[in-house]
Amino acid sequence: MATLLSTSEVEQALATLADWTQDGKELVKEFSFKQYLDGVAFASRLGQAAEAANHHPDMIIGWRRVTVRISTHSAGGLTAFDFALAQRAEELAAP
Amino acid sequence: MATLLSTSEVEQALATLADWTQDGKELVKEFSFKQYLDGVAFASRLGQAAEAANHHPDMIIGWRRVTVRISTHSAGGLTAFDFALAQRAEELAAP
Repeated sequence: MATLLSTSEVEQALATLADWTQDGKELVKEFSFKQYLDGVAFASRLGQAAEAANHHPDMIIGWRRVTVRISTHSAGGLTAFDFALAQRAEELAAP
Repeated sequence: MATLLSTSEVEQALATLADWTQDGKELVKEFSFKQYLDGVAFASRLGQAAEAANHHPDMIIGWRRVTVRISTHSAGGLTAFDFALAQRAEELAAP
């Protein structure tokens, strides 16, 4: 099910997302928040969504920012699941 | 207020905490959880406590684990505030 995307497929998918970048086998974005607890709440919401999708990102919670790193470890790279979760993160980070 | 602890003070304080280590200017511990969402909930609780104390750790949420990194950046190293927050993290991680 988790088919690795080709380089051109990754490029096409990245073009649909704001400020996400590819870092090796991961999709990465640093989200900024006005309040520290806004970031904490975002990580909690994304964690719930990740569990529901059984696809878990790494989330680094810092001072008014949360960095999200997404990859399909079982496939050894980026798949459609990663872009679906990145899109979900965008929705959940919206004010 | 945030006085840097001496090397011996750090060693004494570390001895009172289970499985915390010093990594340069930071206190670090990786907490493990039975369920992914247990880790997410722990990070949320610790985030609330951090905001209340106005002392914010970095928290890296992974698959059934949360790594906590604590430092007093304004002091350039470890202070009593860091050990107080580490102790609070211990309480909040208890099942």
